[in-house]
Amino acid sequence: MVLLEFSIYPTDKGESVSPYVARVLEIVDDSGLPYRLGPMGTTLEGEYGQVMAVVERCFAVLAADCNRIACQIKLDYRRGRTGGLDGKVDSLRARTGRDLHT
Amino acid sequence: MVLLEFSIYPTDKGESVSPYVARVLEIVDDSGLPYRLGPMGTTLEGEYGQVMAVVERCFAVLAADCNRIACQIKLDYRRGRTGGLDGKVDSLRARTGRDLHT
Amino acid sequence: MVLLEFSIYPTDKGESVSPYVARVLEIVDDSGLPYRLGPMGTTLEGEYGQVMAVVERCFAVLAADCNRIACQIKLDYRRGRTGGLDGKVDSLRARTGRDLHT
Amino acid sequence: MVLLEFSIYPTDKGESVSPYVARVLEIVDDSGLPYRLGPMGTTLEGEYGQVMAVVERCFAVLAADCNRIACQIKLDYRRGRTGGLDGKVDSLRARTGRDLHT
Repeated sequence: MVLLEFSIYPTDKGESVSPYVARVLEIVDDSGLPYRLGPMGTTLEGEYGQVMAVVERCFAVLAADCNRIACQIKLDYRRGRTGGLDGKVDSLRARTGRDLHT
Repeated sequence: MVLLEFSIYPTDKGESVSPYVARVLEIVDDSGLPYRLGPMGTTLEGEYGQVMAVVERCFAVLAADCNRIACQIKLDYRRGRTGGLDGKVDSLRARTGRDLHT
Repeated sequence: MVLLEFSIYPTDKGESVSPYVARVLEIVDDSGLPYRLGPMGTTLEGEYGQVMAVVERCFAVLAADCNRIACQIKLDYRRGRTGGLDGKVDSLRARTGRDLHT
Repeated sequence: MVLLEFSIYPTDKGESVSPYVARVLEIVDDSGLPYRLGPMGTTLEGEYGQVMAVVERCFAVLAADCNRIACQIKLDYRRGRTGGLDGKVDSLRARTGRDLHT
């Protein structure tokens, strides 16, 4: 299983891009894959092909009416891991013994 | 104010690096800056110099006993914005009218 | 057309990963897409589906015998642009009037 | 020594940002640090404090008249390495036996 964090937004639409990011989040939310939205990106969990298919749909929905799009993707594959979306955070809380902010 | 997301970890310590990432999170948690830990990175909010100073301390604590370190940083500056750590997510919830997962 | 920069490497194989990165570069070089190798990543130019297909082959070749893999991808789409691989650098040289190092 | 790749640009100035990226490259070129400009970012080599000081100057020059700035940074520290800017590429050429494009 793969954890994939991504952010995608137009850079030709001025300072505020939340209408475009909202479209992206609707695709993510409709994908059925487990995900977590954060202040700087959204993390999906699934097989490589599954998570990349979501990113491709998000790209397509922006490319429909944006002239320039920036996208950053970070991927963490670990053989045999499931539940990494919560597991990584839980493991850090346990290890530090602190109520780390999420 | 700046939002800075980063992840930092050794790549010479084998498959599991959580003991090293725990050190990093203790520095973040002790920094006093508002932050959010996610499955793929930690986001800090503050002035440029403040957030970068935290990253530098994290780098130093790993460089003490790691031979190779990877770090990824993503920065979003918006003039006049405060409270972006929660504000960006809240704004997407409002705009989509969905209880997006965080 | 899209410019896609990526780096991909195992994090469970110790400090030196060049044998694994060499496999990746052979796939890139065999892809037939225009590319540029740099010290921190490789940039491909093509349609979204074309460049992502190369990344997927690179992931598969590492996942065959690596337990943990990190990958970072950065994408720049600009409608109507071709030749961006050299064009962006050429434009900066022209604009600065300097022989910028590549 | 550290290799640091970064890209930084305003997202509130429309589709073309080369005048702003040109400012950044002038700072990089004037820094005296070894660097390589690529189609998706610039890689610097130096001590952690040296390379981060260059990024900070670039941020400051954009923040002077941009309302929103995006920046991505990727860092690779390897103890005892020097000459990594060319060394990593040379090593991949040697290992693959191919004239990889740079």
